Amino acid sequence: MVEVWKQTAGTDYERIFNPKKIAIVGVSQEGIGFGAGIFNSLRLIGFEGQIFLVNPKGGSLNGETIHRSVEAIPGDIDFAIIAVVARAVPEVLDACRRKGAAGAEIFSSGFKELGTEEGLALEREIVAAAAKGIRVIGPNCFGIYCPKSGLTVLPGPDLSRETGPVAFSSQSGGMAVDFANAGKSVGLKFSKVVSFGNGADLREAELLEYFRDDPETGIIAMYIEGIQDGDRFFAALKRTSAKKPVIVNKGGLSAAGSRAVRSHTASMGGRREIWHSILRQANAVQVGDMSEMVQACLAFTLLPARSFRNVTVVGGGGALGVAAADLAEIHGVQIPAFADSLARRIDDLLPRPGSSPGNPVDVANPFVPPKTLKEILRLAATDERIDLQIFTSLIHHYKNMAKMLGKPIKEVTPYRELADVFREVMADTGKPIVVILSNPKSGLDHLDVVEMFADARHAFIERGIPVFGSLKEGLRALEHVNIYYERKRS
Amino acid sequence: MVEVWKQTAGTDYERIFNPKKIAIVGVSQEGIGFGAGIFNSLRLIGFEGQIFLVNPKGGSLNGETIHRSVEAIPGDIDFAIIAVVARAVPEVLDACRRKGAAGAEIFSSGFKELGTEEGLALEREIVAAAAKGIRVIGPNCFGIYCPKSGLTVLPGPDLSRETGPVAFSSQSGGMAVDFANAGKSVGLKFSKVVSFGNGADLREAELLEYFRDDPETGIIAMYIEGIQDGDRFFAALKRTSAKKPVIVNKGGLSAAGSRAVRSHTASMGGRREIWHSILRQANAVQVGDMSEMVQACLAFTLLPARSFRNVTVVGGGGALGVAAADLAEIHGVQIPAFADSLARRIDDLLPRPGSSPGNPVDVANPFVPPKTLKEILRLAATDERIDLQIFTSLIHHYKNMAKMLGKPIKEVTPYRELADVFREVMADTGKPIVVILSNPKSGLDHLDVVEMFADARHAFIERGIPVFGSLKEGLRALEHVNIYYERKRS
Repeated sequence: MVEVWKQTAGTDYERIFNPKKIAIVGVSQEGIGFGAGIFNSLRLIGFEGQIFLVNPKGGSLNGETIHRSVEAIPGDIDFAIIAVVARAVPEVLDACRRKGAAGAEIFSSGFKELGTEEGLALEREIVAAAAKGIRVIGPNCFGIYCPKSGLTVLPGPDLSRETGPVAFSSQSGGMAVDFANAGKSVGLKFSKVVSFGNGADLREAELLEYFRDDPETGIIAMYIEGIQDGDRFFAALKRTSAKKPVIVNKGGLSAAGSRAVRSHTASMGGRREIWHSILRQANAVQVGDMSEMVQACLAFTLLPARSFRNVTVVGGGGALGVAAADLAEIHGVQIPAFADSLARRIDDLLPRPGSSPGNPVDVANPFVPPKTLKEILRLAATDERIDLQIFTSLIHHYKNMAKMLGKPIKEVTPYRELADVFREVMADTGKPIVVILSNPKSGLDHLDVVEMFADARHAFIERGIPVFGSLKEGLRALEHVNIYYERKRS
Repeated sequence: MVEVWKQTAGTDYERIFNPKKIAIVGVSQEGIGFGAGIFNSLRLIGFEGQIFLVNPKGGSLNGETIHRSVEAIPGDIDFAIIAVVARAVPEVLDACRRKGAAGAEIFSSGFKELGTEEGLALEREIVAAAAKGIRVIGPNCFGIYCPKSGLTVLPGPDLSRETGPVAFSSQSGGMAVDFANAGKSVGLKFSKVVSFGNGADLREAELLEYFRDDPETGIIAMYIEGIQDGDRFFAALKRTSAKKPVIVNKGGLSAAGSRAVRSHTASMGGRREIWHSILRQANAVQVGDMSEMVQACLAFTLLPARSFRNVTVVGGGGALGVAAADLAEIHGVQIPAFADSLARRIDDLLPRPGSSPGNPVDVANPFVPPKTLKEILRLAATDERIDLQIFTSLIHHYKNMAKMLGKPIKEVTPYRELADVFREVMADTGKPIVVILSNPKSGLDHLDVVEMFADARHAFIERGIPVFGSLKEGLRALEHVNIYYERKRS
């Protein structure tokens, strides 16, 4: 154990996440396979460093020389990407270490996850090669995405270069790629994403320790199938959660799922109750799937670091009051009724018919002008109990208005104005606003509505306003924030 | 009670759902308000019957004469849409009855839902007026959508004119409009949608009885806040579920939600456990929210009327095997491992590396040709235990390929071919296929992917293949189908 910790301290994460010189070993001249795939991805995302290609057959790819060996690369390298057949990996890894690489990611599969003698032996060789002085990500992984340096996962040519507070580590490569993409779609920004597959060397506990002290990381999300060193992981989780939110999606909690874990990333699953209890004790945020993880990250990214137990719900939608009351009870928030005097003042601003001034405030009409909504939200915030306001949008109804006016929906829908108004109200009241953008119009004949929603989401997120696809999703994310900060405080 | 049943028998539903002559009472010459709104909606959706406008001030709207009273309309009417102030409603309703209307929908609010003496008295007047011989939908509702006749809810100018098996009734008007829109987006087709608001006359139990015997309706969905006559509703639910699936979303099951129900549609909520037990006893399909209801309707629409407990999962995606195993356990399906001989035959068809032939079949590579997938699915279906196959698609990865080829994503993604191939496999094997289209690329820079997904969904649905947005949603919908048909049989 002591040796492992020493090794950690010596890891050159800077050269691993922000390498200047990369070798891609196992690039086919034909441009197919993982090696050529990651080469294209790095070019497309705009990685600025030098890339050296390696294949014993030599030749070239897209005008770039393919070196016949790692040794043939001129000068040293910082990092290596290895995509050769399994049995060749240990030797290549050692060559990369001798070339000065601080780390290497190994895309190749055919190791411990096979459960065969040969696979297990090869994985042991990797562990041994790593111990000589090179950190290994993988094997059986999709590698690292780091927006700052332009290092990207496979396939990740179109991920963002904007950096942000969210770090993600995942045993599953597919999950890492999906999370990076889904996160980008809803406005998450990343510090680092690491897919570590079998985790022969660098894995969950050590990455957690690194992210804890990484100044670029403010929120940590993890997809875990199984862990290797329970004590170390739990200690790291507890220490990290005391500093930053750690959001955990544990796969394989069912009996069958636990068996599946073994063949996917060669680690042990575990019993549901034990995991629940461990995660709770460590004050980790436990989520059920990737969407919930994305939404929790968004809430932690944009909301101030405290809990919000009393909220308003302002807006409209089918059975708003009933749905809000049901969901509030499930997710542990209160929607306190306004005093009569306040309700009357809000009522004076509401359109007729069908509106309702209590809390929730059902504006009923989808076309209430932003400046009226501003006054309503300002008034609602004067109730001292209120910690946060939730606005449930009905902007899909502008589709009909756009049609009647013969104009594009983006021109008639005041979502940018709304976003500006909400930012003002937030600044004036000190109470955050959360927006629910639920769109029932998303079929082929409503692609203009879908586009407008994506643009509206962007406008809100840019102004620091988290957006969720339903009241349920928003309140569930808020619940995670509330529980995390309350437990942290206590 | 006896009288109510007699009245039901005499209701002319044909003239209510498919009216030839409609009066809209309460249309402003300025073209604003609910009356003008529904007039525009009916024109835009292409209602073929005659529409008569009524307002005491007279005048005209869009070239159409506004009559000064219901009496002034030439000849009889079949149906009326009433959008006048609450206190004028009873008299208008009576005039419509005298004009021969079989029914009327009342958009106006200001009745029982207010909880005031005046509101309660006015609602009693409506009940009395209805009893004289006109069926009332509402008040405080958005009315009827019937694709066959082109009658539409408010606002519903862009709903489909294609008819299909799904009937929906809802106390909430917003929910009715959202359900009709969301259903259209995912490929649901409707027989009738009824928003009945306060339900002063026609409401859940009676509509259920009507839908049970309606040959155009095969699946019934309901949003219920509270019911009026528990015994009649339960009897109707039980008798109807024995014939057709009835999918129920009960709002207001929380303590706070139950209070909210009272002010929304003036009915009594109810305790969670009682509702669960009632719905279970009647073999109704209970869902938690609108999306789950839409998805259940889709599964019931496109799957054969039986249960499917043993499935294959074929495709790819982050941690497919682990996620499938976890979800299968939660939703009560088995993913039985293939015999070695079958697994080997499937393995021969799979690309390398990273694929896995057991069940789930992880094809790993997103670009496996449709004809290969066809062979895999055919082979997998030879396992006699298998009832149904689930394909988890990775088509969002074609975005990168499209980019590299410099072509539109719709041209490079073989989703139509895939849909054709699946239809063939279904026909040959007699085992349905369900497709999971999960798209992590949906932000502003991926609108082409979003459009391609909408088109792909359409291609699958057209060929009778249900599509869900995630494995979780698909398996949850399948669970509803399984439980319904197994309980029905027993």
